[in-house]
Amino acid sequence: MNYPESFENLLEAFKWLPGIGTKSAERLVYHILAMDKEKVYEFSEALTSLIQNIHYCETCGNIAEDKQCEICKDPTRDSTVLCIVEHPKDVYAMEKIKEYKGNYHVLQGAVSIINGIGIEDLNIQSLFNRITPDLKEIIIATNPTREGETTALYISKLLSKYTIEVTRIAHGLPIGSNIDYADELTLLKSLEGRKKF
Amino acid sequence: MNYPESFENLLEAFKWLPGIGTKSAERLVYHILAMDKEKVYEFSEALTSLIQNIHYCETCGNIAEDKQCEICKDPTRDSTVLCIVEHPKDVYAMEKIKEYKGNYHVLQGAVSIINGIGIEDLNIQSLFNRITPDLKEIIIATNPTREGETTALYISKLLSKYTIEVTRIAHGLPIGSNIDYADELTLLKSLEGRKKF
Repeated sequence: MNYPESFENLLEAFKWLPGIGTKSAERLVYHILAMDKEKVYEFSEALTSLIQNIHYCETCGNIAEDKQCEICKDPTRDSTVLCIVEHPKDVYAMEKIKEYKGNYHVLQGAVSIINGIGIEDLNIQSLFNRITPDLKEIIIATNPTREGETTALYISKLLSKYTIEVTRIAHGLPIGSNIDYADELTLLKSLEGRKKF
Repeated sequence: MNYPESFENLLEAFKWLPGIGTKSAERLVYHILAMDKEKVYEFSEALTSLIQNIHYCETCGNIAEDKQCEICKDPTRDSTVLCIVEHPKDVYAMEKIKEYKGNYHVLQGAVSIINGIGIEDLNIQSLFNRITPDLKEIIIATNPTREGETTALYISKLLSKYTIEVTRIAHGLPIGSNIDYADELTLLKSLEGRKKF
């Protein structure tokens, strides 16, 4: 026996989401059924409102409700530093540490040979337009994965013709971890990147 | 820094769902952002359509798009047997075995002292209205949990004044399991319920 059509439709919709299979989707639909109707309308509204209102910042590629994101609009940010990240969520991760005061540039991905994503598929052209005499440093904060490292290498080569300091965030042991549980590459990077006391 | 409002709203909406915390919700919202817009509208539509179209069957309490569910509407079902379950999803679980051909009665929950749910809070009154001279057997298929067992006991007592056979689904070892991994209560029930070859 099949579920009623409206039930089946929402079940399918939940299954479009990552990490949600049939069993979880069923659980979610039953939960929605038992929810306050007003809340369900709010949920439905939030979905359409998201895709109607959120776009990518014209300057940096971060998510924004206006043409520019909150960071690009902020005149107090340090315009001499630019931090390159893969994804808007990395911007929010960086902002959480409350230490970095410069601007960002979001690539919307990373070079991936397996998925056929080249450097030209990333938000890279607009990066060069942002290189002004004011800009002193570009920090490449792509993920420490194969894709992120490849992307970092590409970008550093593309930037080598400019007289800007290009840096890469440090690799090493995360705080609170154990050396004997660290993978070899992390430990190697941690040794290579050692500093004087 | 906070997420833009529309982003934050959908994030909150996902967090209303069971098993979805901030990190999972963020992942889902980013996924929705990258999705085909048409699909997102479909998702939004599926949510409102669910609560507009799905109600509980007047007869048995199962989910239905009409006044009666597919099973209650089906004249080929065996009207001499009634299977009592806690939840609509149990109906679908029973239907999957393709063995049971009778009707159902969905309680919409189970007696729970902790949650203050008494027998009178369940869909029980309409059960008595369904006891006709035709009805031969009532199978109580509430879950083998403390709440389900309490509910089963209550219902069996309430039904004792009728001359209907009241049965309880068997407890025992699930197929494919190991005796040495079974909990003691299951093993005890399995021993008590032993059958002749």
